[in-house]
Parts: sequence; structure tokens; C-alpha cells
Amino acid sequence: MPYPLTDPALIDRFAAITGPANAFTDPADIAPHLIELRGLYQGESPLVLRPANTDEVAAILKLAHETETAVVPQGGNTGLVGAQSPRADKAEVVVSLSRLNRIRSLDPLGQTMVAEAGVVLGRAQQAASEAGLLFPLSLGSEGSCQIGGNLSSNAGGTAVLAYGNMRQLCLGLEVVLPDGEIWHGLRALKKNNTGYDLRDLFIGAEGTLGIITAAVLKLYAAPRGHETIYAGVDSPETALKLFRLAQDLCGPSLTGFELLPRIGIEFTTRHINGVRDPLSAPHPWYALIDISSGRSQEAARAMLEDLFVAADAQGLIRDAAAAETEAQRQAFWKLRESMSWAQKPEGGSIKHDVSVPVARVPEFLALADRAVLSAIPDARIVAFGHMGDGNIHYNISQPVGADKQTFLARWGEINKIVHAIVLELDGSISAEHGIGQLKRDELAAIKSPVEMAMMHRIKQAFDPKGIMNPGKVLASR
Amino acid sequence: MPYPLTDPALIDRFAAITGPANAFTDPADIAPHLIELRGLYQGESPLVLRPANTDEVAAILKLAHETETAVVPQGGNTGLVGAQSPRADKAEVVVSLSRLNRIRSLDPLGQTMVAEAGVVLGRAQQAASEAGLLFPLSLGSEGSCQIGGNLSSNAGGTAVLAYGNMRQLCLGLEVVLPDGEIWHGLRALKKNNTGYDLRDLFIGAEGTLGIITAAVLKLYAAPRGHETIYAGVDSPETALKLFRLAQDLCGPSLTGFELLPRIGIEFTTRHINGVRDPLSAPHPWYALIDISSGRSQEAARAMLEDLFVAADAQGLIRDAAAAETEAQRQAFWKLRESMSWAQKPEGGSIKHDVSVPVARVPEFLALADRAVLSAIPDARIVAFGHMGDGNIHYNISQPVGADKQTFLARWGEINKIVHAIVLELDGSISAEHGIGQLKRDELAAIKSPVEMAMMHRIKQAFDPKGIMNPGKVLASR
Repeated sequence: MPYPLTDPALIDRFAAITGPANAFTDPADIAPHLIELRGLYQGESPLVLRPANTDEVAAILKLAHETETAVVPQGGNTGLVGAQSPRADKAEVVVSLSRLNRIRSLDPLGQTMVAEAGVVLGRAQQAASEAGLLFPLSLGSEGSCQIGGNLSSNAGGTAVLAYGNMRQLCLGLEVVLPDGEIWHGLRALKKNNTGYDLRDLFIGAEGTLGIITAAVLKLYAAPRGHETIYAGVDSPETALKLFRLAQDLCGPSLTGFELLPRIGIEFTTRHINGVRDPLSAPHPWYALIDISSGRSQEAARAMLEDLFVAADAQGLIRDAAAAETEAQRQAFWKLRESMSWAQKPEGGSIKHDVSVPVARVPEFLALADRAVLSAIPDARIVAFGHMGDGNIHYNISQPVGADKQTFLARWGEINKIVHAIVLELDGSISAEHGIGQLKRDELAAIKSPVEMAMMHRIKQAFDPKGIMNPGKVLASR
Repeated sequence: MPYPLTDPALIDRFAAITGPANAFTDPADIAPHLIELRGLYQGESPLVLRPANTDEVAAILKLAHETETAVVPQGGNTGLVGAQSPRADKAEVVVSLSRLNRIRSLDPLGQTMVAEAGVVLGRAQQAASEAGLLFPLSLGSEGSCQIGGNLSSNAGGTAVLAYGNMRQLCLGLEVVLPDGEIWHGLRALKKNNTGYDLRDLFIGAEGTLGIITAAVLKLYAAPRGHETIYAGVDSPETALKLFRLAQDLCGPSLTGFELLPRIGIEFTTRHINGVRDPLSAPHPWYALIDISSGRSQEAARAMLEDLFVAADAQGLIRDAAAAETEAQRQAFWKLRESMSWAQKPEGGSIKHDVSVPVARVPEFLALADRAVLSAIPDARIVAFGHMGDGNIHYNISQPVGADKQTFLARWGEINKIVHAIVLELDGSISAEHGIGQLKRDELAAIKSPVEMAMMHRIKQAFDPKGIMNPGKVLASR
């Protein structure tokens, strides 16, 4: 591919679309768009465009298509696999969707909201809440991540168990295609069997097939009662039994079931302000259980009591505590949500975002622990996550006193070990974070040639010039 | 396209794959596969193959691909849009999936089942039930329709409100591609963000992109309590208010909300055995409400009582009756499920399977009634369906004493009138039945060129020779 972005005249043509105030060429303005959260990906680009609306996005892609200029869409820049970062070749225009930040409409009776790509997730939640409704997607980065990025990465988070991930929360899309045409697919329909499912093709495509500019989001009745519990358990096997019991007794009212190891509690209480050990004595594992009732606080409490009685009868729980106030409930969740950050002061951490069939989570943990500890005997495994979805953030903190860089140099080797076990158990090497740059080559190595060929055919069909976020998910061809 | 199926040597090559006992060439054996339920589509074919397993399906498509022979996949042959019927040119091999009828596995702890395409829906429900679980898809034709057809048509039915349609009930697929390659995508994962969503592309593609041979289906905890109610209401507006109230009070425990008109009750009680008027006096409209509790019968009853009290306070309900026994519950649902059949003895019926945003259902009914009655003043409108999904089966029985053929000759004209209103309200002309042959040309007329072009590009990418169920969904190119 040529590098047409060395041509100042072309840069001017792009800048004319958004106006100069929203076409950054000054390195200082561009810099924040080139590097991601953890500094893992540092790209280069001579131009960041901040279009104001869908038509400007369309004009940008029309020009990009005509001139074969590559484009990287960017939302809140919180992605964890480098999909939102330009590559190093200075050939890509970064298109920031931040100014497409309108909530176009909210239909309380239809329980839908039309939000533009640049709406920050927290603001979408807020808008739903002000209408007495719930937009359930909930992530650690909800204060800065954007709806467009949530869609492009098919975001998961802590409410997937009851409400599904972003794919399940979206009814329709507006998308600018790689040639600048606009697909007006903002349908607010629960049922619509009219041809191929284009919506779900763009969701999770990480910006490689087009730019999502707006979406119809599903809203839900806000729960009237909540219970949040920490339960100490002796093993992941017991946590699995407790999960099935909770699911059986609470059904769709079971809105969260997270698994946490003792070491994670220790790291978090040690390093995160305002987090306390939820139980008086230590336990090998913890389940963080969230129950919601659409009826009342009493109904939520009744479910909780049923669960306690049944779990006690089966000897599943060593100890448990329920949050008694909303502040305590927030604190319970803060412990879980800061677990990844609490690893930082403990040195280097090698991370995995994997899933296996729910019933195989204990087996996965046992096999992975054995393999990792045989490679790095003193590694401190901090495996936690969305047990109810089979999704474990299998993180490994460096041994105490080890050299951080030496430890992190083994990232690829350890990934290989863990992912081999995941694949053996019919699991996924990326449960919710996506592929981006981080796992692109690994994806090609583990997927069947049949599946890779289908993906390449789709990419070719939608983006024959290869200008949309090239080198992400799939290698450029 | 040539007609290679006049070549007996080619027919012999296909027959050798399944063995002669499962390669029908006798017109009497073939006949049932050529005509659908209502006799609306009558195709022609010299050959029906009944492969025993995925490898035989793959061998059939490999040969079809090599020889450019067209193939029509067929399940239980219950589809309503002609997608499963061969065309009239005798150029297509019918591939019946009926012998791929194994439930390969059922994982009670993981709550998943791997079923082959030819498993009859009722048998899948039964297998789940025997494991103490629920497979929620429920259709009028569940005694004969098959999982493969349910997937290919993205079937809906009466449990969509709480559990979603077939798309939401499937975690993974095994598919034979148009060139005979097998995609092994039978993943039982709740979360898996590794590249483009191929699964949802095959679901709802009506057999035009490949042949689904097996699927991982989601199972649910079986409810422990049920309440089923008929409520008489004065209008669709009131029914909508009642729906929102029920949704607010019951949340995901609201497992059904159907709307029925008085005339539908009259037809059904008149013509269907064992169906009785559920309320003592007639009412303009009826809501059939289903509430399920994962906890207990008492919990379901408590929700029902809350709903009655709140609905009464708002003056929404004219009268109501709750089923007191399981037999009565079945009878309540039988009334609803036989409504379409009850139209038959009343003469010709022009049908629509449309959806609009839920909140616009009353508006749709008012506009459509006015337009249809202005075209056919004595038409008897039997509009019923899944109000909670915005999906109305807007059926029109002929005027009393009218000539059936004269009435049915206006099918296209009336479709046009009704669909224009649907589109005006941002609705769908096929909510759950699909496109097939019936709505193919209409689809091309109403979808944007951008959307049609994307669909054609996908078809071209997956089936460049155009052998998979040609002329369905999209016109052959």
C-alpha cells in the first residue's frame, strides 16, 4: 500500500471535511490518539479527524476510498487489544467518533434509545436511568468508553449473565461503509427476518468492515430490589455448584456471579483505597453474587434467603455476607472491579481473557494452574472473572522479587501454554476483549483454514481496497 | 444455469453418496418433498437425497459444487415462505436433513445440547425436559419442524418475549459450505469475541449460504410455577398499557403476551374442537398473558395477583380469568395457537407476518384497518399475535359470502397496502417467517440499494456458483 498521507494536499482535502478545528495535525493534539491506556500500543499518524455527524464520516470514507487511504476508527480509546490504535507506518487517518455524542431519541414505552457512536457508556446508562429504565452494559471503563467501541468490540462486562453482551443489547445500526455509503439500519424491532443478519456482522468487527455511527439500544425495566453477597467457598468446583443452585433458584434474577481468588482479595485490600475484606476470616475462593428483583427489595431478599438456606443445606458456603446499604453494595463491586488494577503494584502481570463452557471452569483452572506453575514455580495466579459466563481473566502476577521485564518477556510463552489448554477444552482465547493487533496472528494460527477463509471473504466483500482498520483482526492481504 | 440433472449418470453419482435407499427418484417418493403444507408452492425435482450424516452432506455439496448443480436443503417442510421448496425447473436436488436426527450430547451442568439439523423441535424440547431443563422455542408446528429449519428461518414463536428467537437460543453451529467444506463451529461458549460473527450469518439465511448440520442449543432452568390468563380489554392501546405494566411488575418472568381480537375468539370457538370462550361476556380484544416463576407456583400466583390489583386500579381490564389447572392452561394456549387454522372454514385469508416497534402496535392496527376496510369494506380482519414483540399476524378473512378466488386474487394488492403502512412505521414485512420465494421480489423493492448490495456481496462471497437454494431470499445473478 502506498503512503498517500505524506501528501499535504490530501491532508487538506480530509481536513476540509471536518473543518480545520477538528482536523488535528499538530503532534501534541494527535498524541493522545496514538497511545492506548496501558501504553502497550503506540502508533503514528499525521492526521486525526473529529467529524461532527454521520455525513462527515461518510465524506471521509468516500475520500479515503477514492484515494485508498487507510482509516482507523476510534472511540474512547479504552480497548485492550490495540484495535483502536493506528499502526506505525503513518499511513492511517484516525477518525475519532467523540463528537457524534448525541442521544438522538429515547422511547420509554418502546424501551429503546438511539445513541450515536461517541456517546460515553456512562452517559447512556444515565439517560436510561433518568427515564426510569436500565441500560445494563457495565464495564470498568464505563466513564470513558463509547457506544461505538462497545459495539465494535461486542463488549461484555459484569451484567452479561442476565442481559447478554453488546450484541444482545442492540436492535439496529447506522453504519458508514468503506466506500462512504451509509447503511440506515436503525430499526427498533424485536423481530425482523428479512435477509442476512448484517447488524451482527458489524458488531464485533472491530472497525474493519465500516464505521458504526449510531445504534438502537435496548432498555430494561430498572430493578426495584438488589442483593449483593460475598460467599467464601473452598474451591472453584464448589463455586460452580453454588452458581447452578443460584441460577436454579433465581433464574433471570441472578444478575451477576463472579469468582475471585483469595490472593485477589489480598491484593485489592492492600492496594485499593476504601476496599475491605468482605468476610472476617480468609477463604480459598469467593463468589460475588448479585440478585435483582423487578418487584421489590423484599423479593430480592427472599431469593437471597432461599439461596442461603439451600446452599447451607448442601454445605457449599463457608461464610457469607450481604451488603446492607447501597454504599456497601458499591464497595463490594469496587473490590471486584479494581482487581486488575490491584495487580499493578505487585509487579508485572501476564494476562488472559479466556472462556470455556461454564461447567469446565474448574477443570480449566486446575489444568492452567498446573501448567503455569510448572513453567514459573513462584508465579502468583490471580484468576478471577465472570464465572456465570465461563469467562475468566486468567492473570498471572510475577513472583515476589522477580525482575519485571524478565517476567513479562515470557508473555508469549505463557499465553501459548494457557491458550492450548483453553482450546483443548473447546474454549475461546478472547472472550470479551476482541482480537485487534494483540491476538491477530494467534487467531490465524488456531482457527481452522475454513473459518479464516470465510472471514477473509467477508472482509474482501465489504472492503476490497483494504482501507478499514487494516491489519486488525485479519492480516492485510 | 444448465440443467445437469437431466443426466442420469450425474443422478447416479449423487445417489451413490447416500446409497440408493436414501436417494429418491420415484415420483411418488419425491412428491411430499415438492409441495408445502398449504399447497402454495409446488416445485419439481428429479432427486431427493437423504444423507445420514455431516460427511454425506459434505460429499453431496462437493459434487454439487463441482458440477454446478443447485441444491435445496429441506427440514420438516413447514416453512411458510417457500424457502424449502424446489423451483419448477427440475434443476435442483432436494437434500432432506431428516436422517441427521441425533441429539449428540446434552450437558445438564453447562445447560447446552448439541442437536443435529433433522431433530424435530418437539423432540429437542422433550430431551431438555427429561433432563429437568427447558428448551424454550415453541411453535405451532413443533411436532414436525426441525432444528435446522428453525435455525435457517430464525424461528420465533410464543416464547420470544422472555427467551429470544432461535438466534438467541444458539451458541454454535456446524455448517457444510457450498463447496463441501465443513465449518466446525459447535462452540458452547457464552462469550467468544474472536472475529466476525459467522454463526449469525447462517442463522436466518434460509439455506442460501450453506447447510446447517448441527447446533449447540441453550437450555434453561424449567420454571416451577406458571400462570396463564385471559384478560378482556377495550382496545389495543389498553392492551399495550397492560403489557408495559406486566413487564414492569414481572420483568423476565413475563413469558408471553399475546393479543387476540374478538373475531378470532369467535372463529376459534366455532371451528376448533375443545376450545371454549375463556370469559363469560365478549370483549373487543383479549390479552393472553403467561407468567413463569423459577421459584414456585406461589411466586407466579403472587405476581399475577400484583398484576390484577395494579391493572384494576388503572382500569385496564374489563374481565379476566386465570387457568386453574394444567389442562385449562393448555386449552388457553390452544385457542391462541389454532387461530390461524380457525380461519380456514371461514374462506380465503390474506396473511401478513409483520412487526413494528412495540409501542406502535395500536397505531399500526388503526392505520391498517382503515386502509384495508377502505379497499374491501366487508373484510373480516383477524389481527393477532405476539404483542410483546411488536409482531402481528395481520390476517384478513374474506367477506361473508364472497368468492374465495376473487378475494385471494387481491393478495398482492392488500399486501402492498399493509406493508406500506408497516414501512411507514419503521417496521418489518417479515417478522418471523422469512423471505423465501414469497417475499423475495418485495424485499428487493423495499430494502435500500446499499443493503441489497451488501446481501448480494455476502452471497457471492460464500456461494460464487450460486448453487445454494438459488432464487430464495435473493434473485439469482
